[in-house]
Amino acid sequence: MTGWKDRLRVVLVATRNPLNIGAAARAMANFGFTRLRVVNPYDVAFREARSAVGAAPLLERAEMFPSVADAIADAALVVGTTSVGHRELHHPLRRLEYGAGLILRRLPHSPVALLFGSEKFGLSNQDLSHCHWLMRIPTSDRNLSMNLGQAVALCLYELARDPKAAAARPERIRPAAALELEQITDLWRETLRASGYVNPLTAGSMEEKLRRMIRRWKIPARDAPVAMGMLRQILWKLGRTGAK
Amino acid sequence: MTGWKDRLRVVLVATRNPLNIGAAARAMANFGFTRLRVVNPYDVAFREARSAVGAAPLLERAEMFPSVADAIADAALVVGTTSVGHRELHHPLRRLEYGAGLILRRLPHSPVALLFGSEKFGLSNQDLSHCHWLMRIPTSDRNLSMNLGQAVALCLYELARDPKAAAARPERIRPAAALELEQITDLWRETLRASGYVNPLTAGSMEEKLRRMIRRWKIPARDAPVAMGMLRQILWKLGRTGAK
Repeated sequence: MTGWKDRLRVVLVATRNPLNIGAAARAMANFGFTRLRVVNPYDVAFREARSAVGAAPLLERAEMFPSVADAIADAALVVGTTSVGHRELHHPLRRLEYGAGLILRRLPHSPVALLFGSEKFGLSNQDLSHCHWLMRIPTSDRNLSMNLGQAVALCLYELARDPKAAAARPERIRPAAALELEQITDLWRETLRASGYVNPLTAGSMEEKLRRMIRRWKIPARDAPVAMGMLRQILWKLGRTGAK
Repeated sequence: MTGWKDRLRVVLVATRNPLNIGAAARAMANFGFTRLRVVNPYDVAFREARSAVGAAPLLERAEMFPSVADAIADAALVVGTTSVGHRELHHPLRRLEYGAGLILRRLPHSPVALLFGSEKFGLSNQDLSHCHWLMRIPTSDRNLSMNLGQAVALCLYELARDPKAAAARPERIRPAAALELEQITDLWRETLRASGYVNPLTAGSMEEKLRRMIRRWKIPARDAPVAMGMLRQILWKLGRTGAK
């Protein structure tokens, strides 16, 4: 229990549907977070929440608190979440992309509490008064709230997200070598010729067209022998047919 | 129907639970995507899926297809999604952060299909054979699959995400001006003096300590008059008490 992810407290306030607590726990398990806290859930039997695939250990260790103040007592930074525009806003409102960066800078040193309100009403003004600032999930329709389990998943994804991965080149597929491409071109040309496709008068320019086309296809190295095997088989069959 | 978001087809293949179709539709509504396609859902009454707050119009317009091939027919790029490690991988596997960038480069020009498999089995090898490449949601536990609704939400969030927002400074809270801070410092000092806190012999250094402390608090401009009003009231009360 010493990693930075263990310093995040995911706090669900007055959640109505225990399935949503299960969904939140599953998202935590997906992204490697461990500390779930619930404040006054509507169903105290939430630990048995179905559909929480892989979240059972997390739900068992979830801590229950009678008030927001108790649930956030050990946090050095308290952040409320919202996806809708707030009526009267008394807090700095930061987009998820930016807010997550601020949270990441705190987690190596001190506990941070991330608050999620009830499905129906979100966080109350009293809940919000415990928050240092608010984080907004940048939905395109501010009048349409987000599903609670999805909101938790998005916030944890953004915290676990690797900005370098966005720019990184994926492992390239090794392309077929020029020799292999030329062998494929030869086989294809022979196949076309055997099938009567080639007009002998324009055979020269056809070969060039064919060669360019094969290069445009970007055939991976692993597929080159397969393609050649297929073409040889077709060619053999065409030869047999032609011989008959 | 001309925005780039309308060119994305979210394709749910063999989804078992209609609530998950509803959750996917809600995430689409949250992030402004419109084209939902379902292939062989287990419950053809999915259009009435409960819990799909705000997703009703999208569910009504959802298109149903008998096969993956039909559902992706108009797409120039077909991308499968997965959160688990795939058994035998015949496809390039790209992390969500990177893959979303590739999809974003295609959407201005041509339709892209994003495939999600069933809750239980994910995409079959046959489904995968229609894909140009696969996108992996970077979960920390590769053995634990993601909830379908959450997986859809994460992919759409990453597509709608604004990389510039991560670096942008939020609107700053206007800090109190030096004059206001000095007025607060004065009032505080008077209040401390009236309450008997100040040792007259060290009053000089105390004033400096107090001034530095007030500056460390970063009091916003809007709070300065409030703080002064409070201090004046306390000071008035202390004066009355002292006069008695």
